[in-house]
Amino acid sequence: MDIKRYLREKRSLIEKALDESLPKTKEYPSLIHQAMRYSLFSKGKRLRPILALASAEVVGGKIKPVLPVACALELIHTWSLIHDDLPSMDNDDYRRGRLTSHKVFGEGIAVLAGDALLIQAFRLLSDLKSREDRNLKLILRVIKEISEAIGSRGLIGGQTIDLNSEGKEISLSRLKYIHSHKTGGLFRVALRSGTILSRAKKEEIASLTKYGEALGLAFQIRDDLRDKDEKSEQRKKKATYPALLGTKEAERLARLSKRKALSALKMFGERGEVLKELAESILDD
Amino acid sequence: MDIKRYLREKRSLIEKALDESLPKTKEYPSLIHQAMRYSLFSKGKRLRPILALASAEVVGGKIKPVLPVACALELIHTWSLIHDDLPSMDNDDYRRGRLTSHKVFGEGIAVLAGDALLIQAFRLLSDLKSREDRNLKLILRVIKEISEAIGSRGLIGGQTIDLNSEGKEISLSRLKYIHSHKTGGLFRVALRSGTILSRAKKEEIASLTKYGEALGLAFQIRDDLRDKDEKSEQRKKKATYPALLGTKEAERLARLSKRKALSALKMFGERGEVLKELAESILDD
Repeated sequence: MDIKRYLREKRSLIEKALDESLPKTKEYPSLIHQAMRYSLFSKGKRLRPILALASAEVVGGKIKPVLPVACALELIHTWSLIHDDLPSMDNDDYRRGRLTSHKVFGEGIAVLAGDALLIQAFRLLSDLKSREDRNLKLILRVIKEISEAIGSRGLIGGQTIDLNSEGKEISLSRLKYIHSHKTGGLFRVALRSGTILSRAKKEEIASLTKYGEALGLAFQIRDDLRDKDEKSEQRKKKATYPALLGTKEAERLARLSKRKALSALKMFGERGEVLKELAESILDD
Repeated sequence: MDIKRYLREKRSLIEKALDESLPKTKEYPSLIHQAMRYSLFSKGKRLRPILALASAEVVGGKIKPVLPVACALELIHTWSLIHDDLPSMDNDDYRRGRLTSHKVFGEGIAVLAGDALLIQAFRLLSDLKSREDRNLKLILRVIKEISEAIGSRGLIGGQTIDLNSEGKEISLSRLKYIHSHKTGGLFRVALRSGTILSRAKKEEIASLTKYGEALGLAFQIRDDLRDKDEKSEQRKKKATYPALLGTKEAERLARLSKRKALSALKMFGERGEVLKELAESILDD
């Protein structure tokens, strides 16, 4: 299969849906809508939404009912980036080569823009108008799983420990906690959402959950390895897998995780191809 | 009816449900759970949850199915207070006589605690286990209405304009926008949630929506009038109804709004008594 073409097509679908998911810039109060759009449309890879859509395809589901969830995941991801970058957190001036939200709009508006993106995600998730599929129980289950993945027992929990570990030496188990909660949780729930909404079987959901978790870890380590020299000063102070384990051991762990992710796809046979190719492309480009 | 007893009973019900709605302080990461509980349990009047419960009673509904929504509204209210108090917003050191979250836990954790409370609200709203009533469509409708009330077209919109108006002279229409979005929206949706979940008739929902809007405005003006001398320096710089209209005219507007609120209750006859007494108690104590 032509994975590059697949990614291009899915991304264009997602960009369009994201554009429709937020009020236009001109809408009052324009400032908050400018700030929301500034961060959302900044050359993201749209990995999480793509994973949600692909997981639906792998279990034989349709893309359309998953699209609002896919967009919600990207809004949520953007909220977490804006708040992570704040002076009171990582204090980053740049993200993806552009000034961060608080550098452009000021800290107050950056906090509010993050909040508003998070809220808009739940607005999308609960909207039935845009949905063909109206299995309400499954929609509520997905809202619940997403809230759990990003709350104090999920992403926020990871960010709390991360913030609290700054400048300290931390253990491998703590590093694992941070990353499985900050990064892993959204990957995991992206895969689960797509399959749950596609009425997949329990075993299918379980396998794609494993795939999501392993992919998340491999992605994190690759990201650490790749950006070792490119990170901001502030981010360099953070513990990473290469820093804690050494480059070689970190690379070994990344390869191991990737193998785990791929082997979780076995039960899907040829249908799993897209997630195999996705993993290759995410981990090696 | 004995409104004081009514309030006491409802508050105790709500306090218990709120306590069960958050992870215990000891749960890892303890710091974030401490911060979430510190702000949530700080002598709030629990007005919004009480209004949600009372509105259900007025239309002949039960309290139990509304309780998770009532709690969610209080978590949301607490999120908005924590973020409002941040140095990048109102920069308040005290709230209800206690140090604000960022003064106790630092700014980063305060941002995260607000985020986590907001997310936990949606977790509660989407949880079916705690619900006797399982009208999924109504639950999703309530989630959607709440997201709309607090997003960039609602509470966040109001806060954006508020933040942007600091130190400036503003028009009455702008002040109305700020308050109807920052304060009015949550009052309004509290009333609507309770009635929607009780399967109320359209006219009933419309009447209680009017009640909520008028009560919200009257509450805001009373709050401005009462606290004129008690407010923090930062808050004194904000435009208020008394400052813009003069005390007399502001008092007249508050009385007018209260009358509007009470007249919206007419269709409920004796059943509306509790909301009448509630309005009296909220606006005069």
